[in-house]
Amino acid sequence: MAKAAKGSTKTSKKSKKSRKAAAHDPGALWDVPPAEALRWARGTDLSAVDAASTPGWSGRRRDAEALLAARAPELADLQERLFAHGRTGGDRSVLLVLQGLDTSGKGGIVRHVVGMVDPQGVMHRSFGVPTPEEREHGYLWRVRNALPRPGYLGVFDRSHHEQVLVVRVDRLEPVKTWRTHFRELKEFEAEVAASGTVLVKVALLVSPGEQKARLAERLDRPDKHWKYDPGDIDVHRKFPEYVAAYQELLDRTSTDEAPWYAVPADRKWYARLAVTELLTGALRSLDLGWPPADFDVAAERARLSAT
Amino acid sequence: MAKAAKGSTKTSKKSKKSRKAAAHDPGALWDVPPAEALRWARGTDLSAVDAASTPGWSGRRRDAEALLAARAPELADLQERLFAHGRTGGDRSVLLVLQGLDTSGKGGIVRHVVGMVDPQGVMHRSFGVPTPEEREHGYLWRVRNALPRPGYLGVFDRSHHEQVLVVRVDRLEPVKTWRTHFRELKEFEAEVAASGTVLVKVALLVSPGEQKARLAERLDRPDKHWKYDPGDIDVHRKFPEYVAAYQELLDRTSTDEAPWYAVPADRKWYARLAVTELLTGALRSLDLGWPPADFDVAAERARLSAT
Repeated sequence: MAKAAKGSTKTSKKSKKSRKAAAHDPGALWDVPPAEALRWARGTDLSAVDAASTPGWSGRRRDAEALLAARAPELADLQERLFAHGRTGGDRSVLLVLQGLDTSGKGGIVRHVVGMVDPQGVMHRSFGVPTPEEREHGYLWRVRNALPRPGYLGVFDRSHHEQVLVVRVDRLEPVKTWRTHFRELKEFEAEVAASGTVLVKVALLVSPGEQKARLAERLDRPDKHWKYDPGDIDVHRKFPEYVAAYQELLDRTSTDEAPWYAVPADRKWYARLAVTELLTGALRSLDLGWPPADFDVAAERARLSAT
Repeated sequence: MAKAAKGSTKTSKKSKKSRKAAAHDPGALWDVPPAEALRWARGTDLSAVDAASTPGWSGRRRDAEALLAARAPELADLQERLFAHGRTGGDRSVLLVLQGLDTSGKGGIVRHVVGMVDPQGVMHRSFGVPTPEEREHGYLWRVRNALPRPGYLGVFDRSHHEQVLVVRVDRLEPVKTWRTHFRELKEFEAEVAASGTVLVKVALLVSPGEQKARLAERLDRPDKHWKYDPGDIDVHRKFPEYVAAYQELLDRTSTDEAPWYAVPADRKWYARLAVTELLTGALRSLDLGWPPADFDVAAERARLSAT
C-alpha cells in the first residue's frame, strides 16, 4: 500500500482490481474508511507516524484528485442542507479545527477543501497571537465568539489547542498552569458538541524534512515571501518539542464527542482528500433532509398565480 | 447582439469572427468592457432596462461559461495578492455590495463568483431584518462592523442601501427621514473608499416575469422550500414601487468613488460573468505586486540550511 502510494508504476493485482472498482466508485480505493484509519488511538507513538504515508488509501495521487473532484457536488449539497437547516430554526453546525505546524498545509485545506462549498455558509477564523483585547479575557473567550452559528460550517485555522502547544513549547505559562488546560479543553468541547456542533479536529502531520523543504521554497519564491517569518526557523528547531506537545494533546483531548484525526500531510493531495472525506462524513452524520415547508404550498401557488 | 445573446443558432459574420478571436482570448467577446457597459448613467430609465439583455457581451451562454472558468485562476491570484498585501501592513481591500430583489440571484453570485477565491480571504455578511441589538444603533453601525479588514474581499448580501429600499417601500420610516439617507449613504461610502476600500456596487436586475417564475420554482421544488417565504409574494406585488426606489437609489448614490453597476440578471450566466469581470477589474485596479521580503533572504537561507 505504501509502495503504491509513493507512485510506483508497478501495479499489484489488488490495486488493479481496486482501480477497476474505482472507475465506478472512486471511494472504493479506501481500504479502510478514513475516519477509522485516521482516528487517533491513545498511546500511538506520534514520532513514529510516517508523515508521507497515506493511511487507508490504496490509490495513487491521480485517483485521489479524481475522488476529491467527485466529492465536490456531494459536499456542496450536504453543506447547503446544513445551511437550510440553520435558516429554518435548526441548531446543528459543524466545526472543522485545523491544527498543524507552519507549512503543514492548513491554508491549502481551506482553499481546496472548504473552497468547495458555498462561502455564504462558512465561518472561517484564524487564531494568531492574541490581540491586547483578547488578552484581557480567558483564552477561550475569542474561541467562543468564533463558534459557528447554527447551520454554518465553522473553520478554525489553529485554535484553543495552541494553549497546550505554543504556550507549552515557548513557556508562555508555567507548567502547572498550562497543564490545567487539558481538562478545560475537553470540557469546552463537550459543551460545544452538546450544543449541536459536530467537531472534526484535524492534526496535520508534516515531517521535519518536508517542513524544511517548504520553508526553503518560501524563501526561493518571491510570491511566497509574505508567508515567511524568520520565527518559522525557530519553530522548526523546536520540532521535537512540538511532537511531544502534540503527542500529549492528542492523547489527552481525543474524546468520543470530539475525536482527533491525525492526518499525514507530506503529500498534500492525501491530506486534502482525507479532510474532505472526514468533513463529508461529519455532514452525512447529521442526516439532514430538506426542511419541510412551514406554509401551505398549494395556497401559496394560488396566491402567486393571482399576481 | 441581443439575438445572439438569446442563443440564436444563426451566426452572423461578426459573431463568427468574435468567436474565432475568443478561442485565444475569450474576453474578446466583450464588445464594450463590462465596467463601461454596466456602469449606471444617471437618469437612465431603469424600468426600460431589459433584464434579459447582456450589455456589452456578444457571446453565447457557453462562451460566457468558458470565460468564467478561464477567469478563475486570475481572480484567485489577484485575491491572494490582496490578502498578502493585508498581511504585510497594506491597507487596501475590496467590498462587493450585492443588491437586488428576492430571486435576483445574489446567493448564486456568492456561490459561483466569490466561490472562486480562497475562503480565508473573504468576509461575507448578509444583512437581514435588524436584530434587537442592531436596532439600538444607527443603521450604519452593523455595516461599519462588517467592513472588510485590510487585505480582505468583503461581500455584502444586501446592505445599508436597504435603508432607502425596503424602508421606503414598506414605509418603515417617514419620508422626511429616509430621504436624508441618500446623503448619508454617499458620505459613508466616500469615507469607506478614502480608507482604502474599492467598492463594487452591483444592482441585480430581475424582471417581474422571471421573478414570478423563480418563486414558482421554489414552490415546486421541495429542496427549495426553505428559501421561500410567503412575504416574497408581497414584495413581488410591490415590484413597481421597488423599481422606483432603485431608480432613485442608483441616480442619487452612484459616485466616482462608489459607482453602481446595473446588471441584468434574468440570465444567471450573464450576471455571474459580469460580476466576475467587475470584481476582477476592481482587484486589477489595485495593481498589487507580491510584497517584498522584510527580511534578508540570503541570511534566512543560510539559517535554514544550518538547521
